[in-house]
Amino acid sequence: MSLAKPTPSSADIGVTGMGVMGSNLARNFARHGHKVAIHNRSVERTQAAIAKHGDEADFIPCETLDDFVAALQPPRCAIIMVKAGAATDAVINDLADRMDPGDIIVDCGNSLFTDTRRREAAMRERGLHFVGCGVSGGEEGALWGPAIMPGGSPESYKRLGPMLESISAHVGEEPCCTHVGADGAGHFVKMVHNGIEYADMQVIGEAYDLLRRALGLSPAQIADIFAEWNEGDLDSYLMEISVEVLRQVDTETGKPLVDLIVDAAGQKGTGAWTTQTALDLGVPVTGIGEATFARGLSSSPAQRHAARGFAAEAAEWDIEDADAFIEDVRQALYASKVVAYSQGFNEIQAAAEEYGWDIKLGDMARIWRGGCIIRAAFLAEITKAFEKTPDLPLLIGDDYFYAKIVEALPHWRRLVSLAALHGAPVPVFASSLSYYDGLRADRLPACLIQGQRDFFGAHTYRRVDKEGAFHTLWAEEGREEVEA
Amino acid sequence: MSLAKPTPSSADIGVTGMGVMGSNLARNFARHGHKVAIHNRSVERTQAAIAKHGDEADFIPCETLDDFVAALQPPRCAIIMVKAGAATDAVINDLADRMDPGDIIVDCGNSLFTDTRRREAAMRERGLHFVGCGVSGGEEGALWGPAIMPGGSPESYKRLGPMLESISAHVGEEPCCTHVGADGAGHFVKMVHNGIEYADMQVIGEAYDLLRRALGLSPAQIADIFAEWNEGDLDSYLMEISVEVLRQVDTETGKPLVDLIVDAAGQKGTGAWTTQTALDLGVPVTGIGEATFARGLSSSPAQRHAARGFAAEAAEWDIEDADAFIEDVRQALYASKVVAYSQGFNEIQAAAEEYGWDIKLGDMARIWRGGCIIRAAFLAEITKAFEKTPDLPLLIGDDYFYAKIVEALPHWRRLVSLAALHGAPVPVFASSLSYYDGLRADRLPACLIQGQRDFFGAHTYRRVDKEGAFHTLWAEEGREEVEA
Repeated sequence: MSLAKPTPSSADIGVTGMGVMGSNLARNFARHGHKVAIHNRSVERTQAAIAKHGDEADFIPCETLDDFVAALQPPRCAIIMVKAGAATDAVINDLADRMDPGDIIVDCGNSLFTDTRRREAAMRERGLHFVGCGVSGGEEGALWGPAIMPGGSPESYKRLGPMLESISAHVGEEPCCTHVGADGAGHFVKMVHNGIEYADMQVIGEAYDLLRRALGLSPAQIADIFAEWNEGDLDSYLMEISVEVLRQVDTETGKPLVDLIVDAAGQKGTGAWTTQTALDLGVPVTGIGEATFARGLSSSPAQRHAARGFAAEAAEWDIEDADAFIEDVRQALYASKVVAYSQGFNEIQAAAEEYGWDIKLGDMARIWRGGCIIRAAFLAEITKAFEKTPDLPLLIGDDYFYAKIVEALPHWRRLVSLAALHGAPVPVFASSLSYYDGLRADRLPACLIQGQRDFFGAHTYRRVDKEGAFHTLWAEEGREEVEA
Repeated sequence: MSLAKPTPSSADIGVTGMGVMGSNLARNFARHGHKVAIHNRSVERTQAAIAKHGDEADFIPCETLDDFVAALQPPRCAIIMVKAGAATDAVINDLADRMDPGDIIVDCGNSLFTDTRRREAAMRERGLHFVGCGVSGGEEGALWGPAIMPGGSPESYKRLGPMLESISAHVGEEPCCTHVGADGAGHFVKMVHNGIEYADMQVIGEAYDLLRRALGLSPAQIADIFAEWNEGDLDSYLMEISVEVLRQVDTETGKPLVDLIVDAAGQKGTGAWTTQTALDLGVPVTGIGEATFARGLSSSPAQRHAARGFAAEAAEWDIEDADAFIEDVRQALYASKVVAYSQGFNEIQAAAEEYGWDIKLGDMARIWRGGCIIRAAFLAEITKAFEKTPDLPLLIGDDYFYAKIVEALPHWRRLVSLAALHGAPVPVFASSLSYYDGLRADRLPACLIQGQRDFFGAHTYRRVDKEGAFHTLWAEEGREEVEA
């Protein structure tokens, strides 16, 4: 059964790719009063979407890409929601072949920002706008209000922005959507969002693990503690769902479900992307890096099997003041989380400088307050910090967060120390603390490393007392120093 | 002044690219009785090499690439030693245009292994052998005997191997050169070598920093301690040169030179490559990753400036038993170093599986024993470990190293604990310990992470008690569990 030809120029916007994400985005647009053309490479999915959701609104189903493009009111806005990679490239080109100068192609998939930059340049050559657009919130978010991070030209945002803002999550009156910056800026910020999400999940995991090991608490008891924390500084969606997960009882066995879940964490690559990109930019994102490696470790069966029964040579847990320990854990979690955000924002700053993006960091924290996975109360404080000082070099140096970190420090130090002595893995808690102590150090052993590098590779070094690059003739008798 | 035409087929091997590395390699070949054709894009450099080193041996200087290729005895062996990237691609193609099937092009530069794989495939199409060849040891190594890690076809190694082995470093009678594996295997192993080098340098740096902070020792005193360590398990080139660097007194000021060196470590990218590649492969290389990030942190002036004066909220150092503390540091250094190697070998294993390389891990440790930057006594034990168990999943699980780790553990734990309490950054010491404790954990909090991922993204999870992928309908009343 084929579909009728749509009325030309009848749709405000179009969505091609009728997977769950695509059809949920289309439904969200329709619910907000936009006429939406929908299309899928195989028409069956389009028909299925109409059958299932056609009563919600007047979708404009299109059988062919020609019909789809014709249905869009110029300047056309076409959203692509297909698999990242070659499939996305193919659809972009098929659309571009049918479009006119000034039309807008929007990629709402999880594309790598370098791909987005390449595509944007290619489309710009053809007179088209290309918008790489990060969408966070999963399937439910796509339907009921995601956080939306569109890149591309400011001009394209004039046409596209109001529609995207209408379907985004809102916090009060404020939409969780703003123009991020040129070309790949939107997908870049979405990537860092996901990297931060990795760190955020890992620090909650470390807290859970410590409470369990040290105090022998049950998942339900830990859920109660997390629920209490979720009333304060740690109020966040991830904390909220952790409570739900930990309270879940398996219907079959009556045991806590979490104890039946295989402890090997999967990943879809955005944590790795964030870390890899930070390495390119020279920005230390130790929290995100360790969180990504922790997932890798958990999913290394051969290595974990080989390490079964490895000696602990550690002290037995014997915590006298449980409440004090719980507070240590809470403070370490909070401080490590702030460090991970601080590092993530440094990565965005470095990319903005590298690629010439004008990104308002406060706005990024603002649009993450709703719809997305890392939505949390404390993002409002991050927004304040960057609005006060737009080029703040360190989020943890902002008055508000610095005071929190100083308050956390004794707890954080004690906890990392206890974990080391008692044999508990705390990769992000410990790494974040070393990062803090490294940052504030008057002198780092990098001076010795520079000496080594000059010794074996004549890489030269700089001196603290005069300008220039210097090389020491290490092997020669006189060992004089020469200016390189 | 132009050069005379060389006698055709008169050279055993050729080197194009007369920078210091290239001319030193050529001199090394000549010293070992090989007739070497030399070439450079601009003839001046070739002439300079002859003027400077022509009395050492009968080089065959070639003005044009045509002359250079003609001078090589078939099957031809041409070594490229030019800048990695586009310059290397250009020379490869220029050579290939002049060569015959069966000839061998060797890239001795620091190319990324994925480039090497691409080039090898392209040359194979044209009937040529392409050998990506890692060379470690810097300029001095190139001249007097480097560690050499050639990839490419076994057939090409028959012709090329004996010549490379003759110029390589030797430990006793054994050359520090062996055929690593197909296509990019050689450059891959060289990359991991460099990544391990980053970790090795950082752990020495952490040890130095702790001895200085906690005991107030001078660089010269720490040099004495390192010199003593260098007699035992930690015997290595990097330890040896650290002693030299720490003993160096600035002729101008009379101060220890290390105190005058700016503590911002540079990097040329191979530590980042190793970490990035490990992230692609899903292998946790936390030691290399943290070492790379530590360099990044040291070279973040804006962040370090912003953190000046950040509160320590830490205990003052007050070590009663200095000797015991020094032993804690030594043990932590040793254990962290072994973990970094263990992780690096896991990365090589994962790549070998991914790319179908038949890499003998014991041989890698063997050829690193001489010529290269990470040469160290304990590599002999690594060779033994992999010869005993070629597919050893964890180097730290080998009897020899496991016993050492168990011995180190109480020291290592105490040291990481002390560092946390006293405000000293120990990114690699702490991260390696968390890695060890994570590996040996019966249960990791990855179970909670999988629960979170299933909650917000329907990613499903596996169960410990039955096969299959499961999804919980978290939001629904009954909350029944469904098989995905």
